[in-house]
Amino acid sequence: MRVAILAHEKFPDRAKTALGVLRYADYDAVAVLDRETAGQRVNDFVPDVQDAPIYESMADLETDEVDALLIGIAPIGGGFEESWRADVRTALENGCDVISGLHYFLADDEEFAELAAENDCELRDVRKPSDDLTVSQGIADEVDAEVILTVGTDCSVGKMTVSMELARDAREAGYDAAVIPTGQTGIMIEGWGNPIDRVVSDFTAGAVEEMILEKGDEHDYLFVEGQGSIVHPAYSAVTCGILHGSMADKLVLCHDAGREAIHGYESFPLPDLSTYIDLYENLAAPVADSDVVAGALNTSSLEDDAAREAVDAYVDAIDVPATDVVRFDSETVLDALL
Amino acid sequence: MRVAILAHEKFPDRAKTALGVLRYADYDAVAVLDRETAGQRVNDFVPDVQDAPIYESMADLETDEVDALLIGIAPIGGGFEESWRADVRTALENGCDVISGLHYFLADDEEFAELAAENDCELRDVRKPSDDLTVSQGIADEVDAEVILTVGTDCSVGKMTVSMELARDAREAGYDAAVIPTGQTGIMIEGWGNPIDRVVSDFTAGAVEEMILEKGDEHDYLFVEGQGSIVHPAYSAVTCGILHGSMADKLVLCHDAGREAIHGYESFPLPDLSTYIDLYENLAAPVADSDVVAGALNTSSLEDDAAREAVDAYVDAIDVPATDVVRFDSETVLDALL
Repeated sequence: MRVAILAHEKFPDRAKTALGVLRYADYDAVAVLDRETAGQRVNDFVPDVQDAPIYESMADLETDEVDALLIGIAPIGGGFEESWRADVRTALENGCDVISGLHYFLADDEEFAELAAENDCELRDVRKPSDDLTVSQGIADEVDAEVILTVGTDCSVGKMTVSMELARDAREAGYDAAVIPTGQTGIMIEGWGNPIDRVVSDFTAGAVEEMILEKGDEHDYLFVEGQGSIVHPAYSAVTCGILHGSMADKLVLCHDAGREAIHGYESFPLPDLSTYIDLYENLAAPVADSDVVAGALNTSSLEDDAAREAVDAYVDAIDVPATDVVRFDSETVLDALL
Repeated sequence: MRVAILAHEKFPDRAKTALGVLRYADYDAVAVLDRETAGQRVNDFVPDVQDAPIYESMADLETDEVDALLIGIAPIGGGFEESWRADVRTALENGCDVISGLHYFLADDEEFAELAAENDCELRDVRKPSDDLTVSQGIADEVDAEVILTVGTDCSVGKMTVSMELARDAREAGYDAAVIPTGQTGIMIEGWGNPIDRVVSDFTAGAVEEMILEKGDEHDYLFVEGQGSIVHPAYSAVTCGILHGSMADKLVLCHDAGREAIHGYESFPLPDLSTYIDLYENLAAPVADSDVVAGALNTSSLEDDAAREAVDAYVDAIDVPATDVVRFDSETVLDALL
């Protein structure tokens, strides 16, 4: 699918979803829309992702050049910026689908709904949970695939990135691996998935199970994108539901080097790494034998030497193979997983 | 508040909500509506709850005799039975509020919404989560009250009943205790509360915290109604969110005598009781010091002698005071909690 990625005035530094899509998605990115950096190219700013020209608006693209417009940024609060309306309108008039992870559902916008109907296009609000979700049956372990779940010491430690990197590296090494996306950006990258943090709480595990049952006999390995942390004061419910719903065979413990307290909840210090391993494994045990067999450390805040030292210390602390999968080679970690 | 309780064709055995309300709520029950048992009284069937006459319909009550109609039964699926419509209509025409825990929201019913507006009455759908819920701040422990949470080895082991019984016994012993209701029947009994299993998964802990913050400085003890079980393949997310959101000081481990596997998920045997204690305490620890200090055993399936033996064995297994709070005196358990 050929996509244009809307990132007005925020590319590249404040366009996390756009960058995730350029880095990991299979889409053919035909353009980024950013009226501030228009005229330049993606690789002028970020060298190691898919390149594309940057345009001012959808009107700069040929009508038959693109299949979908993807909203690659989100203002605080997840609202729709009226300055984007012309681009969405043009996309729909040209027969393009529009993919959005905003809290504001495009399908509920009267003008967009009408245009989509007229032009036979789809408005895909990936943050809107499907209506047919229900409770887990406790059968995710019946699929053929080995299920690998990324679990974290906190939010924003890199679980989505680790899932994407490991699945990609596994595929490059010849394995049949897929990602089970559970969050907004993951869903945009993969083009499908349930936004687990938005489903009815009773359906948390069920919404993960449903995805594993759907894909589990088509692949040899599923990398499930984890969310939150099992000791997070606010988000642990989502983490727990994913842990039990996925019935994972193997866990990858993700951590951000130097993080000492729960992000945004600084009065809660992170427990020891060994405590996390015990908690995840012991909590999973009555439902599935899920062992922490590898680790992933986010060292993006460190220089090269310090990063290498931090990885070594992390391996010592958790006593399983680990690396920074973005910065270094992931071979030892993949060896432990596949 | 004076209520009539609708329980057509299901009183008493299949009217769990009606019975819970008659047993625990502060409402003045002026009537039960059941066209099958009309003419008899509640105490003809159930001796140890609030008595009330059983009528055929709302039309049998004086208009100024009642303040609210409460739907005390639920068909499978939680739909609205059209055979109840006349009663709801009469109630609204007489100026009564209507309280319902059905999945079908009465406020979305055009006729009821119009009648409620005309007669200045409220349609209270307790299963509809409030729109202003949000994520937990991790501050439930800042309230003055001691927070006591019932946790379970499974669903349907009696957590709601234990919360209600202990709060009532505490009040009768002179303590200032209140219940924090988290499920449909608990909310009907208390007349307020968040249906935790229906909230957006990200708000699970926050919806509990919000209630504790609201009531926590008004009472000395809060008994939080727990849900599910921390090892339930489908519902553990809700349990985990309540555990962390409540930041409970003390936990009461609830179990059903003889239960050996997860109800409805029979391939999952219940772990040892000591495993539950470790899991609940260790999972809570990074967020709050929550210790299992008492137990509650549901012995309703056993004869008296066997029940006493089962309680003794339960006390031995969990190594804290325990009893069947419905069948026996709760003094030793209250001593451990208050």
